Amino acid sequence: MSEEVVDLEEKFALFSEHWSPKLVARLNDYEVKLVKVKGDFVWHRHEDTDELFLVLDGQLTIQLRDRDVVLGPGQLFVVPRGVEHCPRADGEVKALLLEPQGVVNTGDAGGELTARVETI
Amino acid sequence: MSEEVVDLEEKFALFSEHWSPKLVARLNDYEVKLVKVKGDFVWHRHEDTDELFLVLDGQLTIQLRDRDVVLGPGQLFVVPRGVEHCPRADGEVKALLLEPQGVVNTGDAGGELTARVETI
Repeated sequence: MSEEVVDLEEKFALFSEHWSPKLVARLNDYEVKLVKVKGDFVWHRHEDTDELFLVLDGQLTIQLRDRDVVLGPGQLFVVPRGVEHCPRADGEVKALLLEPQGVVNTGDAGGELTARVETI
Repeated sequence: MSEEVVDLEEKFALFSEHWSPKLVARLNDYEVKLVKVKGDFVWHRHEDTDELFLVLDGQLTIQLRDRDVVLGPGQLFVVPRGVEHCPRADGEVKALLLEPQGVVNTGDAGGELTARVETI
């Protein structure tokens, strides 16, 4: 996986489901994941880690408790550890996520949107 | 820095020098850097860490001792720790780098291309 070139568009073409990050590369003990999102996620936090979102297509709103962070293509944002957030997208968004391996997408919230990360 | 939206194009507009990565975001103890490159770098390795290159504009060749890895926009590659590499670009390339904080751009090679990382 990590020993080859990763073409982001080719990888995005391999899946269609929303809110289910796919692992495309490893960097030490960190993981690069791609995700398609649409609609509302769940409020959650990651107590032990920051989480980076880089939007590649569409417009993503990361709701924080005190404000909304709006990201378009070519914009990134790091949600600090421990900060509650809830991603939301009116149209489909393609984004790249970066975080340590083993981070669960729903953080402390759990529930039906919790995804098992598949490697593509 | 990391508490705000980072617009990659806006950040790239802030500098013009080649081979001098600029820090734009932190994720735990990792750093997201932007770099413009053109021409040949130096052969080097990072003994303690992998290094991720994501090309945003242009075509970057990462020369390895046994092959060349060619990256265009939207393509990424992770150079494994300890692997000698030498980036090269005929035209200007804009790329995003990801690696642990404190990594020196020239690795074990040092020399005049060694850059002090500035935050932008």
